[in-house]
Amino acid sequence: MEYEVIDTQISPEGRMDVLSKAEVAKLLDNSHGGLYNIFRNCSLAVLNVGSGLDDGKELLERYKTFDISIIQRERGIKLDVRGAPAIAFVDGVLIKGIQEHLFAVLRDIIFVNGEIASNPKFNLDTSEGVSDAVFHILRNANAIRPLVNPHLVVCWGGHSISGAEYDYTKEVGYQMGLRGLDICTGCGPGAMKGPMKGATIGHAKQRISTGRYLGITEPGIIAAEAPNPIVNDLVILPDIEKRLEAFVRIGHSIVVFPGGAGTAEEILYILGILLHPDNADMPLPLIFTGPESAADYFRQIDQFIGGTLGSEAQGRYKIIINDPVLVAQEVAAGIRQVREYRKSTGDAYYFNWMLKIDTEFQRPFEPTHENMRNLALHKNQPNHLLAANLRRAFSGVVAGNVKDQGIRAIEKFGHFEIRGDVQIMEAMDALLASFVAQNRMKLPGKAYTPCYRVIK
Amino acid sequence: MEYEVIDTQISPEGRMDVLSKAEVAKLLDNSHGGLYNIFRNCSLAVLNVGSGLDDGKELLERYKTFDISIIQRERGIKLDVRGAPAIAFVDGVLIKGIQEHLFAVLRDIIFVNGEIASNPKFNLDTSEGVSDAVFHILRNANAIRPLVNPHLVVCWGGHSISGAEYDYTKEVGYQMGLRGLDICTGCGPGAMKGPMKGATIGHAKQRISTGRYLGITEPGIIAAEAPNPIVNDLVILPDIEKRLEAFVRIGHSIVVFPGGAGTAEEILYILGILLHPDNADMPLPLIFTGPESAADYFRQIDQFIGGTLGSEAQGRYKIIINDPVLVAQEVAAGIRQVREYRKSTGDAYYFNWMLKIDTEFQRPFEPTHENMRNLALHKNQPNHLLAANLRRAFSGVVAGNVKDQGIRAIEKFGHFEIRGDVQIMEAMDALLASFVAQNRMKLPGKAYTPCYRVIK
Amino acid sequence: MEYEVIDTQISPEGRMDVLSKAEVAKLLDNSHGGLYNIFRNCSLAVLNVGSGLDDGKELLERYKTFDISIIQRERGIKLDVRGAPAIAFVDGVLIKGIQEHLFAVLRDIIFVNGEIASNPKFNLDTSEGVSDAVFHILRNANAIRPLVNPHLVVCWGGHSISGAEYDYTKEVGYQMGLRGLDICTGCGPGAMKGPMKGATIGHAKQRISTGRYLGITEPGIIAAEAPNPIVNDLVILPDIEKRLEAFVRIGHSIVVFPGGAGTAEEILYILGILLHPDNADMPLPLIFTGPESAADYFRQIDQFIGGTLGSEAQGRYKIIINDPVLVAQEVAAGIRQVREYRKSTGDAYYFNWMLKIDTEFQRPFEPTHENMRNLALHKNQPNHLLAANLRRAFSGVVAGNVKDQGIRAIEKFGHFEIRGDVQIMEAMDALLASFVAQNRMKLPGKAYTPCYRVIK
Amino acid sequence: MEYEVIDTQISPEGRMDVLSKAEVAKLLDNSHGGLYNIFRNCSLAVLNVGSGLDDGKELLERYKTFDISIIQRERGIKLDVRGAPAIAFVDGVLIKGIQEHLFAVLRDIIFVNGEIASNPKFNLDTSEGVSDAVFHILRNANAIRPLVNPHLVVCWGGHSISGAEYDYTKEVGYQMGLRGLDICTGCGPGAMKGPMKGATIGHAKQRISTGRYLGITEPGIIAAEAPNPIVNDLVILPDIEKRLEAFVRIGHSIVVFPGGAGTAEEILYILGILLHPDNADMPLPLIFTGPESAADYFRQIDQFIGGTLGSEAQGRYKIIINDPVLVAQEVAAGIRQVREYRKSTGDAYYFNWMLKIDTEFQRPFEPTHENMRNLALHKNQPNHLLAANLRRAFSGVVAGNVKDQGIRAIEKFGHFEIRGDVQIMEAMDALLASFVAQNRMKLPGKAYTPCYRVIK
Repeated sequence: MEYEVIDTQISPEGRMDVLSKAEVAKLLDNSHGGLYNIFRNCSLAVLNVGSGLDDGKELLERYKTFDISIIQRERGIKLDVRGAPAIAFVDGVLIKGIQEHLFAVLRDIIFVNGEIASNPKFNLDTSEGVSDAVFHILRNANAIRPLVNPHLVVCWGGHSISGAEYDYTKEVGYQMGLRGLDICTGCGPGAMKGPMKGATIGHAKQRISTGRYLGITEPGIIAAEAPNPIVNDLVILPDIEKRLEAFVRIGHSIVVFPGGAGTAEEILYILGILLHPDNADMPLPLIFTGPESAADYFRQIDQFIGGTLGSEAQGRYKIIINDPVLVAQEVAAGIRQVREYRKSTGDAYYFNWMLKIDTEFQRPFEPTHENMRNLALHKNQPNHLLAANLRRAFSGVVAGNVKDQGIRAIEKFGHFEIRGDVQIMEAMDALLASFVAQNRMKLPGKAYTPCYRVIK
Repeated sequence: MEYEVIDTQISPEGRMDVLSKAEVAKLLDNSHGGLYNIFRNCSLAVLNVGSGLDDGKELLERYKTFDISIIQRERGIKLDVRGAPAIAFVDGVLIKGIQEHLFAVLRDIIFVNGEIASNPKFNLDTSEGVSDAVFHILRNANAIRPLVNPHLVVCWGGHSISGAEYDYTKEVGYQMGLRGLDICTGCGPGAMKGPMKGATIGHAKQRISTGRYLGITEPGIIAAEAPNPIVNDLVILPDIEKRLEAFVRIGHSIVVFPGGAGTAEEILYILGILLHPDNADMPLPLIFTGPESAADYFRQIDQFIGGTLGSEAQGRYKIIINDPVLVAQEVAAGIRQVREYRKSTGDAYYFNWMLKIDTEFQRPFEPTHENMRNLALHKNQPNHLLAANLRRAFSGVVAGNVKDQGIRAIEKFGHFEIRGDVQIMEAMDALLASFVAQNRMKLPGKAYTPCYRVIK
Repeated sequence: MEYEVIDTQISPEGRMDVLSKAEVAKLLDNSHGGLYNIFRNCSLAVLNVGSGLDDGKELLERYKTFDISIIQRERGIKLDVRGAPAIAFVDGVLIKGIQEHLFAVLRDIIFVNGEIASNPKFNLDTSEGVSDAVFHILRNANAIRPLVNPHLVVCWGGHSISGAEYDYTKEVGYQMGLRGLDICTGCGPGAMKGPMKGATIGHAKQRISTGRYLGITEPGIIAAEAPNPIVNDLVILPDIEKRLEAFVRIGHSIVVFPGGAGTAEEILYILGILLHPDNADMPLPLIFTGPESAADYFRQIDQFIGGTLGSEAQGRYKIIINDPVLVAQEVAAGIRQVREYRKSTGDAYYFNWMLKIDTEFQRPFEPTHENMRNLALHKNQPNHLLAANLRRAFSGVVAGNVKDQGIRAIEKFGHFEIRGDVQIMEAMDALLASFVAQNRMKLPGKAYTPCYRVIK
Repeated sequence: MEYEVIDTQISPEGRMDVLSKAEVAKLLDNSHGGLYNIFRNCSLAVLNVGSGLDDGKELLERYKTFDISIIQRERGIKLDVRGAPAIAFVDGVLIKGIQEHLFAVLRDIIFVNGEIASNPKFNLDTSEGVSDAVFHILRNANAIRPLVNPHLVVCWGGHSISGAEYDYTKEVGYQMGLRGLDICTGCGPGAMKGPMKGATIGHAKQRISTGRYLGITEPGIIAAEAPNPIVNDLVILPDIEKRLEAFVRIGHSIVVFPGGAGTAEEILYILGILLHPDNADMPLPLIFTGPESAADYFRQIDQFIGGTLGSEAQGRYKIIINDPVLVAQEVAAGIRQVREYRKSTGDAYYFNWMLKIDTEFQRPFEPTHENMRNLALHKNQPNHLLAANLRRAFSGVVAGNVKDQGIRAIEKFGHFEIRGDVQIMEAMDALLASFVAQNRMKLPGKAYTPCYRVIK
């Protein structure tokens, strides 16, 4: 099948429009070097939004001739784009929101990466250094807003959910928008798009013209979960771990909708952090919610958490079934507590500096077959470290499902093998099997072939 | 069944916040006099939005204790509201959009009416005087915007349409929003809400923060078709005819989605005007569109028009089935012609002064049983006058279906009788019967009892 | 001497850009009828700003070929201007502020006048009717601003003042601007321009970008006291009395700088109102101020008031010599009291509805030789009525000094004769003589020939 | 004499309000280390604006107890200020413009300095590295504005000028403001304040609310030439040479008013650059202007240039006496050429990257007695290098006149000795003597004691 493509040149908006000579030179340099592939692929992902595709590898094969390069112009730079998906254009003109996203890619992949890599002030070997880099990237993307009260809700959940679940995420977003709350998600379709669409309508009804729809992504996932153009602030963190850290430091509350392996990864990440003794008193409203049809799903999640991390972990979240108004009210109430806490401790509203994030949660995990096989999935370790390892297991499954590199590795070497304590393995197997059974691993209409094997 | 209600006081925004002593006195006076009922009922309609109710009489019975009055305060006036539907509030606070609508009611029912009635400069006996009053009401509502190129699309269609049709209207609105077009509808659910919701998303993707969702209604219909809070400009014209004139003078293109008797009324209105010899050269893009499932519907409409008004009338519109992108492109192209025409004739962009509207289309029609019986529905008259009378027939049917007064009249005196040339009567009967068969007369879930009888 | 002139066409901004057909027709009609002369002369005055001319008659003779007319265009109207003073243009382009003023003239002379004259709702025979018209004119000019705390200071004083006095008015304006206060004056040079220039700098230093410089004038004085383009809100009231009423109802405090007959007129006006028994408790901060060199001047004014209206009148103002900071602080403190009072009485912040203004102060006074001769200048009447008559006497002197009609009357019939109680006449003669001696009757560099004779 | 002081705490605005933990730590660190003195003294200078003081040493002695420190707070940092000049406050509240300047000091002295010093990407040993640092500092101060046509006029001239000359600079600023031009100066009183005040009025009349008044200064001069609060963009470059480079790269035209040694330094700087062969075709409108009374002054300057740098240098500027309108028109015309040139060469509008600035003009010159004595002031070198050395000579004189360090050096070691070719020395002696005779070395009212001796 042939996909329609368009060639064009695009001018930047925002931060990228005033560069020094040295910066332009470096940009050109970087864009031709090792970063070119990431830059190209993320750009293609951004342009391919709305295509209903969640397979990074297929995307790249579909638009093989796609090319993007930086050209120097009179008042700065332009992007020269060839073979771009026609879907990103309206009557030949690139949709404004996608244009912004394209320059967000340039900014975060080429510019910021360069700046952080070459600057000794960012020591990525320390926990503080990583947090500092995350802050720097967010601030450089203008995602840090001072002087406003906390009101940013992070929404997690699957990109492949049923129509009823999708409508439910919209309704929750709508109720949050009516209450003046802003939305932050990981971009992509499903539970990551619904709350934003709902909040857009809620904001419109309340005449809030400054509503924010913050998308936080990373190069490995962006192809599978391209940012919807409603996203009016897009930030691309360098890797999964920094992306997750960005979510939990910038958000004031977290709402989890039904999802698959990625959602389980996110749940384990936040629980692992909240279980750290230093965070025992830190308020961070965490709500799992879905329509009636998702009741089973959350019961399974809850059982898995109970069976692996125990009741302390279960005490850090609430499960609310089929009540969008209550979800929005609980979030609003929880955020008021967050505000009080930050005020009393003197922490900033715009970034949760005080949250302790262990290095285990910051160090990038590469889901090779070997690393997957060697994960320490046993109870003979502190709870928050078990959470860290469980998180890695699900992270690997996500990679094998939708990421270009992961898919290729599975094609080459076969299933990932996951092994550990029997009790944990059984819980894990049950949970993953339920995801498959409920079609939560892929977008609808595709059969799912597992990329892992649980060794009990 | 008991409906939850709330008491509150509300401060004005916009025009109503700086009143002279004389104006406040007059407002208080008017609000207690003959206008009180209209004012109260329209206010209730605005507050009841989203309830899924399209029956003016039932609404009034549901909230019998509802009361609204003006009170004088330090810096102006406030509205004192008692027994208001709780659905209009979020955690006890009135939704901002509904607050604006409430003051639009006050402005248009109490203030403007008073101003026009008592001011000799508006001679409502002349065609020019009526047009002038319509302009004045729109301008006073801040709905007239100078210095912008034409880009306002009027969308007509039923409030009771299928899910597929509703989704289609959203998609068309989305495509128009992507092209920077604004939306004007008659308020209410269905085809009047879909395009606005779609355009909201289209505008968001194009980063258009100034998108307009203009609702034009009148006291008789507002209860059945309450303005969705997305409507960010609401104008309440005094009667059906001025409302229709407002649509065609302020809009730059008209898109008609499937509907019932009300939609037929609107189609006959615009065709009657376009058939006037003075308007022969006047460009006004008119498109009938719907999804595949509406193909039959428009074929019937087309046949009815062919059989009554003939091929000249058929030449003034295009029918596009299941192609939202094409609809948006045709509208955009048509509006470019409108712009050229206005420019060449020196007419304003914001109001179509040159469009000839015959007094027959301006004079209010009261759908009494007698008036309905005496309609001149024969071919022995100029085409545009036949259109005027056909329009009145459908207008009566709408009143009998959803308007408080009409429903009470039918309850008291039985069916309206519609009579005329056999050929016309047969065409009419067929059309109305198809509306009933397709559930286009009422919101879904209710059986329809016809309010008319076609006498062949 | 030849004065350079320019021909051009100018598009409207603001209110005048969306007119109905009927309004345009009426405008064209009015502009050709009896209002044409006022319209033309006021337009010329506005265009001649900065020329250093304060003589209405000379202005008209200087630009005899000046002509202005309304033309209908595509999106509304334009002004066709011929023989306009080149001083209003920068490299051939009309200064933006002057353009706005030109349309303020059109709005207030042609449009509002027409609206008020033909509308029965304004009964100019009653005190309430006059106040209502004043309010309507101000609101129509967008000069009424709701939702803001009181902070508008009316500055009165001469257009012909010394350099030291002018610098002092700037310094006072600067100190008021630093405190966030806005300025309202009667337009023109001298004490009416200084405070605005000073406040502009004060606002700039405080980063206040919304500073208002409200000019309130009337057709008879505008030629002599053309609005400086800093004025960013210009309103032209129909006559002297409505202009004065506009000042005292819209301002929250009054500061009087040194001046001549016009300033005396303004002082007598406000004192006459404040002496009305109904206003006994009404707070209205009134400060007379000037540099050291003006100490004598205010002593004379104070003596004149003591000798005619007595100590009660003297109790309504403070005299502050050479202390701009203290003036600004007193004004700010006084306005806080005004705010408290309005709050406690429920009156609006934007218009002093509660201030009682006797019809004697509202009825236009025509300074004919006969009317001047017959003024009741004796103590055998309530204090506030004596103030009214003294006000009229000074009003006549202003007319004879600088207004076109007044100058012509003096040329034809000789001096005005002013007569009354000996004590009052002596006080008056002394005051007027001191004005002449201090060069307060005309702009510097011109010898003053009195237009009056005090008959003792 | 005792000077009134105030203690207070101040919150940041703009860039400094979102800092990372690492940045706050570094800021605290830097502010206690070697940068503390510069930070404190610049802050004091900014707070002392309007005092009529141009003596850095006296300022420091006057406010010995002045102290400023950074404190960490809930949502970021605050400044704790002790013993601040009361003149910076209005009724106890710091003037907003001065508050902004205080944080500009913090940003540029503590933050940027730290960032540039520790970052290997700025190689200050190369010409490109210095230009890059200048760009970085300007951009970090938000002084670089993309997407606007060139319209920034740099105004140079003395801080100690006569009233007539000051009024003239205001009039030129006014005429430039009327033409939509923005102003950039070195801050301080006299010719650096006049054009900004004039432009403020010009912008107000043209309803330009976005007028920029950019002040570019450096730590050594800020005490003598404190930024007027009208300055709404303040940047403090690290040294004289980077400040001068900032002027010529960011400005689109240069207007020179009468001045003293500092003005001569600036003239020699820009001529030295324009004389570089690489800049032969570079358009940069350069106008020397003043009122009639300054005609002699510019004749002397012109003779000095003719006698030292020759006619080529004389060909790069125009002298316009007493014609503000012509100056503004010439500037506007020249800037149109600059725009064409930048467009044709593809250079940015916001920064003159193509202008060649020799390292000789970038290397900081320390005016020690030895360096002053050893300046190569002879014709046996390329013209632009002679200009560089002459520039240094005048730079030293400025230091000896008004800078803290320079004054102390003169007090300790006596006069600077300036020596070189007789012809040059005579020209220099004549020029300096004329500055002294015309009171151009110090603010009025102070006797001038020369800090130099020309050795012929």
